[in-house]
Amino acid sequence: MTPLGGLGEVGRNMTVYEINGKLLIVDCGVLFPEEHQPGVDLILPDISKIEDRLGDIVAVVLTHGHEDHIGAVPYLLKRRENIPLIGSKLTLALVEAKLKEHRIKPVTQVVAEDERLSRGPFDLEFVAVNHSIPDALAVMIRTAAGSVLATGDFKMDQLPLDGRITDLRAFARLGEEGVDLFMTDSTNAEVPGFTPLEKHIGPVLEQVIEKASGKVVVASFSSHVHRVQQVLDAAVQAGRRVVLLGRSMVRNMKIASDLGYLNVPEGVLVDLKKSGDIPDHRIVYMSTGSQGEPMAVLSRMMNQEHQVEIGEGDTVILASSLIPGNENSVFRIINGLMKLGANVVHKGNAKVHVSGHASAGELMYCYNIVRPKNVMPIHGEYRHLIANGKVAIETGVPQNRTIIGENGTVVDLADGVARAVGQLEIDFIYVDGKSVGRVTDDDLRDRRVLAEEGFISVVTVVEPTTAHIVSGPDIHTKGVAEEARVFDSITPKIADALETAMSEGVHDAKQLQQITRRTIGRWVGTKLRRKAMIVPVVVVV
Amino acid sequence: MTPLGGLGEVGRNMTVYEINGKLLIVDCGVLFPEEHQPGVDLILPDISKIEDRLGDIVAVVLTHGHEDHIGAVPYLLKRRENIPLIGSKLTLALVEAKLKEHRIKPVTQVVAEDERLSRGPFDLEFVAVNHSIPDALAVMIRTAAGSVLATGDFKMDQLPLDGRITDLRAFARLGEEGVDLFMTDSTNAEVPGFTPLEKHIGPVLEQVIEKASGKVVVASFSSHVHRVQQVLDAAVQAGRRVVLLGRSMVRNMKIASDLGYLNVPEGVLVDLKKSGDIPDHRIVYMSTGSQGEPMAVLSRMMNQEHQVEIGEGDTVILASSLIPGNENSVFRIINGLMKLGANVVHKGNAKVHVSGHASAGELMYCYNIVRPKNVMPIHGEYRHLIANGKVAIETGVPQNRTIIGENGTVVDLADGVARAVGQLEIDFIYVDGKSVGRVTDDDLRDRRVLAEEGFISVVTVVEPTTAHIVSGPDIHTKGVAEEARVFDSITPKIADALETAMSEGVHDAKQLQQITRRTIGRWVGTKLRRKAMIVPVVVVV
Repeated sequence: MTPLGGLGEVGRNMTVYEINGKLLIVDCGVLFPEEHQPGVDLILPDISKIEDRLGDIVAVVLTHGHEDHIGAVPYLLKRRENIPLIGSKLTLALVEAKLKEHRIKPVTQVVAEDERLSRGPFDLEFVAVNHSIPDALAVMIRTAAGSVLATGDFKMDQLPLDGRITDLRAFARLGEEGVDLFMTDSTNAEVPGFTPLEKHIGPVLEQVIEKASGKVVVASFSSHVHRVQQVLDAAVQAGRRVVLLGRSMVRNMKIASDLGYLNVPEGVLVDLKKSGDIPDHRIVYMSTGSQGEPMAVLSRMMNQEHQVEIGEGDTVILASSLIPGNENSVFRIINGLMKLGANVVHKGNAKVHVSGHASAGELMYCYNIVRPKNVMPIHGEYRHLIANGKVAIETGVPQNRTIIGENGTVVDLADGVARAVGQLEIDFIYVDGKSVGRVTDDDLRDRRVLAEEGFISVVTVVEPTTAHIVSGPDIHTKGVAEEARVFDSITPKIADALETAMSEGVHDAKQLQQITRRTIGRWVGTKLRRKAMIVPVVVVV
Repeated sequence: MTPLGGLGEVGRNMTVYEINGKLLIVDCGVLFPEEHQPGVDLILPDISKIEDRLGDIVAVVLTHGHEDHIGAVPYLLKRRENIPLIGSKLTLALVEAKLKEHRIKPVTQVVAEDERLSRGPFDLEFVAVNHSIPDALAVMIRTAAGSVLATGDFKMDQLPLDGRITDLRAFARLGEEGVDLFMTDSTNAEVPGFTPLEKHIGPVLEQVIEKASGKVVVASFSSHVHRVQQVLDAAVQAGRRVVLLGRSMVRNMKIASDLGYLNVPEGVLVDLKKSGDIPDHRIVYMSTGSQGEPMAVLSRMMNQEHQVEIGEGDTVILASSLIPGNENSVFRIINGLMKLGANVVHKGNAKVHVSGHASAGELMYCYNIVRPKNVMPIHGEYRHLIANGKVAIETGVPQNRTIIGENGTVVDLADGVARAVGQLEIDFIYVDGKSVGRVTDDDLRDRRVLAEEGFISVVTVVEPTTAHIVSGPDIHTKGVAEEARVFDSITPKIADALETAMSEGVHDAKQLQQITRRTIGRWVGTKLRRKAMIVPVVVVV
């Protein structure tokens, strides 16, 4: 068993199980880039590691429909389109909608909790778990080498909106049968105690919406069906109608309501186009953009580039977490909306969000109920994995049976003992526009240099046989923040250097470019104290 | 009165007071850039607004020695070196050390709490306030137009290490006399209740250091004298010696101990060079880098590029806040140090930090004691200013006497009434290496494009008279992440376009460059779906 993503990071979850030459994959998600990865849209698990084994994959099990668990499926299926996908009804519906955009029609197998099926040497049983999207599943994988219970993302809300709790009775039964390796969600393992109930958000939303006099905008994640449900219910309570805003919000809620996961009260939803006649105090906009994403609805509202105008007396609720790294953009939104006169309600000043992941207290229940022989924390940064491992050890899992791995750690399971037996080198696969895997770390380094320092290009046309400069050196800069005349003193020196070199017999454009680079590079470093990227071009005619 | 920085942002605090043609400045700090300002080192208050009034400045009052209150002083003094600086002993010592690096010897006037002096039409009285650096002062400014009490940054720790509390008796006396305008620190106004005592950090540090078996590294801000004091004391308690690491830490603590603000127990400090013989469990390293700054000590330790090696059994304490926007870099450090085997103690898992700013509860005391006629919240993002204004209004300051301003808001004070009477356009002044104010927003836009998309340069040498292409088009790219041969299909089209244009009489390099840009730009947009910066160069020979 080897994780190809999701360990040491929050995102791109993917684990590959192997026995008898066959592969089973659990989850296939994306990771969102950080600021040191400029221009990158998405990061994929390192699927290059199974490039030559595509024919051996018996199935991909998808535990739930979040991007960090399903987002990379299109990129895997582009390599082999008929890999069977297994997941719950909602999960597969969300994947299919995504694949449609990539013009891929997948082979799917819908499963529900308590169902059991075999794929090659893998016997699979599914268990209901509760998470911040409906219809999430854990999976018990039985093989000749032993059994693995993988939770996917989960928490243990004891009173979820849909009544579908994490099935601890099943966990107990599987534990009695014997779980050799338990792989658990680490995201909230650092948080002591218990994640509060989703149900407690509802009354807060109701109160805020009830009190609001103008427009109400609620921003949240576009897959958070239960959060949207509570907003719909609160709107009905307050006699308001609801407009869904944002492509993914509209699409996902259509899927959820078609499949019966979202209960839309008669007549509450209204199209943006038809909402013109409804007065402000009779309307709630349910939007995307709670993380400050610049192109999403909420940012556009803040920049007054959206048809819905926010002003004095309006209320904006950010019913969402603040994902680390997004602080600047989220606070920019909050400040901007407040400047427009809005009352902004968020996690920092009201209980309008709870996490979707089990806290340490919940993990303890799990470990004590399952009593696994071995534990491997997954889904999280290193600090999360360590914290989860500590919880396992506190409940009695031996320290040497608690595997803190990283992406690429090869874990061997035999005779009830899991051991890290190897380590693959795992790369980031960057998606940038249409290109997948073509952006390298060198490109990103170049981009960072360009961002910090800009570039200076020097174009010179030379006639080496006569050691003569036909044109130039001409200097072009972008992002360097120096005036053009600063370079007046260096161009003659470059010309000199080139002429000298040519008269000494250097006629090769590459070599003359090197001379150009050295001459101006040294000067830029010492005189301007800059490290701009130097792009020397010598054209030989 | 006009703030030139510090409103709507955390940093570059600076306010200008004017009466009878004379100016008084309070604070002159820097702001640190965000990720959308690549390559920028510092951002200054908009001192261009007083460029032609430099001769009228009677003094700069510096409330305390933090960078966001003193960091821009060198850039102001470069414009007029003999502007008198007024501040407490420690504040001025820190400013002088900074100015020395810029080779500026300032004119200074040391003041202490309860002192009163006049500068031109301004009568100044100083009041002790408590903050996360010693020797901070509030200032009462009396003029013919009325009186202003400006707090600077402060909190109301009732048991500070040095016994120097925020002087509420002075606030009361000034309040009785009459404060027309009260300008208060908004940073923590959103936080309900009271900021905990600095003193409570000590026992936690002691406990962690006492329990540690290997090396201990404590990272904090290099100006946090009291935090360092508590680390020194805890080290002595545990029988450890202390090595100060990081240029600013060493420099500031030397100043603080020379001036008597830091009490260094005999023999506890040891130089890094001489620490080689001391065993790991007898040493504490006090370092900079608690915000994950890539060049600071802690990052270098994590990257194993520092002489002090962190490994299994060592303890690292981040005794610092997590400044919003630094989450990614700080968590990268925490994960990295944990991977090396260190036990990492931070604000998230132990009480090793308290804020330096007054929470809402403390602000209420202030407003009730001072009973100002008008209030203007300063030092903070818009959300902080609003929260601070709400506190003022709750304590009875009339809403129309509570001014929520922004940078450049011109406030007029007359007959006990403060009014916003105008608004100046306030710019960012970017410091980038040696250059001040030369980086424009256009440059930053270019840099962002370069970072996200890279650039494509096209160099063609032409002979217009014969409509002949001598060399090229040659395409060079950086950061674009496309293979060179992708461009094979477009170069002939560029050549065609140029030849056609030349044969139709277009002989001008600029125009031919435009044709190049159009031809390749359209292709890059539609074929590659990229928005790379296009740099067309046509050399006419």
